Amino acid sequence: AFEKFTRPMMGRKELLKNTLRKAAHGWKLIVDHRLTEEEAKWLRLYIDEPAYTDLHWGMFIPAIEGQGTEEQKKKWLPLAQKMQIIGCYAQTELGHGSNVQGLETTATFDPKTDEFVVHSPTLTSSKWWPGGLGKVSTHALVYARLIVGGEFHGVHGFIVQLRSLDDHSPLPGITVGDIGMKFGNGAYNTMDNGVLRFDHVRIPRNQMLMRVTQVTKEGKIMQSNVPRQLIYGTMVYVRQTIVADASKALSRAVCIATRYSAVRRQFGSRDGGPETQVIDYKTQQSRLFPLLASAYAFRFVGEWLKWLYMDVKERLAANDFSTLPEAHACTAGLKSITTTATADGIEECRKLCGGHGYLVSSGLPELFAVYIPACTYEGDNVVLLLQVARFLVKTVSELGYKKPVGTTAYMGRVASLMQNNCAVQTAEGWLNPGAIVEAFESRAARMAVQCGKKLAKFENPEEGFAELSADLVEASIAHCQLIVVSKFIEKLKQDIPGKGVKQMLEVLCYVYALFLLHKHQGDFLATGYLTPEQASLANDQLRTLYSKVRPNAITLVDSFNYTDHYLGSILGRYDGNVYPKLYEAAWKDPLNDSDVVDGFHEFVQPILKQKLRTSKL
Amino acid sequence: AFEKFTRPMMGRKELLKNTLRKAAHGWKLIVDHRLTEEEAKWLRLYIDEPAYTDLHWGMFIPAIEGQGTEEQKKKWLPLAQKMQIIGCYAQTELGHGSNVQGLETTATFDPKTDEFVVHSPTLTSSKWWPGGLGKVSTHALVYARLIVGGEFHGVHGFIVQLRSLDDHSPLPGITVGDIGMKFGNGAYNTMDNGVLRFDHVRIPRNQMLMRVTQVTKEGKIMQSNVPRQLIYGTMVYVRQTIVADASKALSRAVCIATRYSAVRRQFGSRDGGPETQVIDYKTQQSRLFPLLASAYAFRFVGEWLKWLYMDVKERLAANDFSTLPEAHACTAGLKSITTTATADGIEECRKLCGGHGYLVSSGLPELFAVYIPACTYEGDNVVLLLQVARFLVKTVSELGYKKPVGTTAYMGRVASLMQNNCAVQTAEGWLNPGAIVEAFESRAARMAVQCGKKLAKFENPEEGFAELSADLVEASIAHCQLIVVSKFIEKLKQDIPGKGVKQMLEVLCYVYALFLLHKHQGDFLATGYLTPEQASLANDQLRTLYSKVRPNAITLVDSFNYTDHYLGSILGRYDGNVYPKLYEAAWKDPLNDSDVVDGFHEFVQPILKQKLRTSKL
Repeated sequence: AFEKFTRPMMGRKELLKNTLRKAAHGWKLIVDHRLTEEEAKWLRLYIDEPAYTDLHWGMFIPAIEGQGTEEQKKKWLPLAQKMQIIGCYAQTELGHGSNVQGLETTATFDPKTDEFVVHSPTLTSSKWWPGGLGKVSTHALVYARLIVGGEFHGVHGFIVQLRSLDDHSPLPGITVGDIGMKFGNGAYNTMDNGVLRFDHVRIPRNQMLMRVTQVTKEGKIMQSNVPRQLIYGTMVYVRQTIVADASKALSRAVCIATRYSAVRRQFGSRDGGPETQVIDYKTQQSRLFPLLASAYAFRFVGEWLKWLYMDVKERLAANDFSTLPEAHACTAGLKSITTTATADGIEECRKLCGGHGYLVSSGLPELFAVYIPACTYEGDNVVLLLQVARFLVKTVSELGYKKPVGTTAYMGRVASLMQNNCAVQTAEGWLNPGAIVEAFESRAARMAVQCGKKLAKFENPEEGFAELSADLVEASIAHCQLIVVSKFIEKLKQDIPGKGVKQMLEVLCYVYALFLLHKHQGDFLATGYLTPEQASLANDQLRTLYSKVRPNAITLVDSFNYTDHYLGSILGRYDGNVYPKLYEAAWKDPLNDSDVVDGFHEFVQPILKQKLRTSKL
Repeated sequence: AFEKFTRPMMGRKELLKNTLRKAAHGWKLIVDHRLTEEEAKWLRLYIDEPAYTDLHWGMFIPAIEGQGTEEQKKKWLPLAQKMQIIGCYAQTELGHGSNVQGLETTATFDPKTDEFVVHSPTLTSSKWWPGGLGKVSTHALVYARLIVGGEFHGVHGFIVQLRSLDDHSPLPGITVGDIGMKFGNGAYNTMDNGVLRFDHVRIPRNQMLMRVTQVTKEGKIMQSNVPRQLIYGTMVYVRQTIVADASKALSRAVCIATRYSAVRRQFGSRDGGPETQVIDYKTQQSRLFPLLASAYAFRFVGEWLKWLYMDVKERLAANDFSTLPEAHACTAGLKSITTTATADGIEECRKLCGGHGYLVSSGLPELFAVYIPACTYEGDNVVLLLQVARFLVKTVSELGYKKPVGTTAYMGRVASLMQNNCAVQTAEGWLNPGAIVEAFESRAARMAVQCGKKLAKFENPEEGFAELSADLVEASIAHCQLIVVSKFIEKLKQDIPGKGVKQMLEVLCYVYALFLLHKHQGDFLATGYLTPEQASLANDQLRTLYSKVRPNAITLVDSFNYTDHYLGSILGRYDGNVYPKLYEAAWKDPLNDSDVVDGFHEFVQPILKQKLRTSKL
């Protein structure tokens, strides 16, 4: 029921219909087997096809849970949880993405009828992108400018019914449809990302989510005592899951590329023997193994973020908001650097598979196309790094009187980090967690301080921030990479069962850190922390480490424990039987249904027979 | 006739049929208007859709011209030029890509019948990838191991008929088909990349291309006096066109991203006024303008390569092979770095368009998917850089007695390049072509020399080369970037008409060079040529330069003079009317044919009505 192979060959209609079919099968399994919410989530993950259900369960329901009053939750959640209604999350508009305060859709309170009038005043106010909106959802959580008594009172969420629960036709005043094809063959084209316009659509007052802000019958605005910081808590949660997903996506790509690199042979044949496995080439290793190490690194930092979220949640419940800004900056930054590295890493894995990586049956084109939106949604990656930078600059400027916490605690030792330079003197000297962490801390601290100094030269700090933004982004990256490296090292301080597993993970940890150190050696050298000789020793050590990864490379990807169905790649098959299966798969392309191709008689034969002039085209 | 918009919505069969239709229209125009070969090439370029004709004209015919005897050319070229036969270029095999000597297909001479027996002895010997092979070509130029008298005599090209010229059915002994879907919606799926197997197919002896090597009726192997170096001349030609194409592809992406960055607004609204155009953000500029500068840089280095090829051709005609190795290394390296930068640059441009860049109607997903094979075909980009490295290391080792020529001439000044460090003391000091070239020369020379020294420590040079390959690749990149920077600067020494044009190009040239300098500052610092302060001054200057590019950014992309048809992007429309046209285009998706989606009654209604248990799935 969940077969994926034929997906790329389908036209758009057939593709969506197929997704609806799979979603129904999935729901049937969930109901029949009384799966828990957690189990249902795993099932949807392994079905591995974007569908309207992702938004229904992942955005619509959580938003009602978070922003609805008890009464609202009591009314809407049972309907949604039984899927008697299907909801989506309608925030972004044709002309407005990152800047929520710039949204144009209006919800104007009409005290005469006790209703809101939801309206799209301009073309650019059309809702645009929400998944599940285009062809499936019966309801939407619509974000709109609240207007009461002619005045603007911020952007809020409103539950609006879009389609008839009987015949599914759009309700009066609603214009709704799909926004068209997206990147890739299948990828997100299985999702009905939608466009939505309102022509003075009326909804009852109690369909505004009112946990934080209430509008009374009389048109009075009231703020509840629920802390607004709750929103940040939700953001920490969502971004934490994105980091975990980055590790999953990257490890899939790395698994495919590593297995195929062991199957594929090129050059190096001696005496007519077999050619060399490409995984034995240092150029292949120097591109592949850092990605393998990154997949592990992102997994461990993801686990740590899960802990961080729980910690934040407990503190919020106790009205302790002290760690929230740091936790927010940290998750924003980690979301940014892990998704960027994963998107680039998937494409690099594709290239590492040579020409065959370009075939859809390699699984990599689809993996790339379906993954890359993660760099844009839930905060554009560059915008997020600027938020981190703002927090870093603030932390630096407050060092005199405020103790930095959590992942910025190292800033408290800024004086020594600015002063002490690296002491490593041999390649082996780099196999030292202390030396590694200190190097990354010094680099990050020095870059942040340098940015602070440059900013101080501007009269208008905002102007300075804008002018220096490219440098600020680099400082943020340095800070975030430090977090990932530190959490990997912390993980290795724990007990890790299995003979030799810990040792192997240590090798990967060094590969990750020294790969970054080499890639960004400009930072380390420019801040004066490293000498060119020390940087060169790190690079020598990196080469040695690759040789240590090589014998265990296949085991390290097998241990992700992905099924062939989930990987969806002929190149990455567990049994390594690549070429016969590639050959077999080719014949399933619709073009091979007949020997003589559709169109031959009209468009090729007249050319061959020199009869083009007299033929109709 | 050449409309592109509906392409991504088509199923595979419809898509290929549509391409056959376009190719027929194109050929009709070429014949009716008696277009020259050059004009026909431009027409095919602007039709902008990969098709079997690309290989027929771009590989099959040139290969016969280059490798056929006069007699063979007289027989085959008129047929091909009138398209009475359609040919493709069948080299790569399922198990063999870069390594031509590893091909497995055999062509065994049978003196009894004066024929070759072409055969696919293994599954991995199946021809795999050739464009135009799958469903269209009537003939193929097949590369196979020549076996005469039981002995292997190298890999050669053979003309083999595949399909009947009457009914197009495959000939006996031929198994041929399409290899299936590739990356992207349309992209290369309009091409019938094919798979081909031979079961003892017999062809006349005179269908082996015999310009260089002949097989006589008696089975004697003869070498002609045609220099084998001719192959390298062809490689220089092909790779030169790839560099020119890189500039075209990158400039298309940059044109789209730049125009849309001026249309799109985000944040920064003051007093309810319009938000800021995203092109005014420094983060946007620092990502976009270097790509704009790269598009120009690649264009100029492409023009220079065209000259280089003519020069090589003239020298070959005069039996002067002295510049060939340098020209070969230079084109290999430039092919590698320009295509890698272009592939990455297109994706970066997509990200610079925010969420809407993910829509196929932005033009960017298709541009990416159709471009990226350039990183793999005609030499994998990393393999090519290793070839360059081999040449560089050789050049360094021979410095004592052999004067380096052409693009390696600077190596002749290696002593002073190793010794003299940068003298720039102000940000303005970087606006000096001499200082820039010297910096890139010093970096490249020092990295090459350093590699040479490290290699010398290995007893077995081949082992050393393998072990150090990642470092060697970096040294090659440094060398190739120097070439691009130098050629840009040389171009600016010429007369350039138009008021202010030269000044603007100078700004772009500095942007290109200083962007690279910042990106690779690790190299410049590690080799000791720059101090951290000098690197920082370069970065300061770069920011200033971005402000100079900004006012002319739109003009600089408009001057590429691309039509809206060729760009194929709603975001990149010349008139800037983006949002209304995006909105309009959405409704053309097949999903919007009806309000109620196909599959609603079977797969959604039963869920909403809680009747899934009793419904058939």
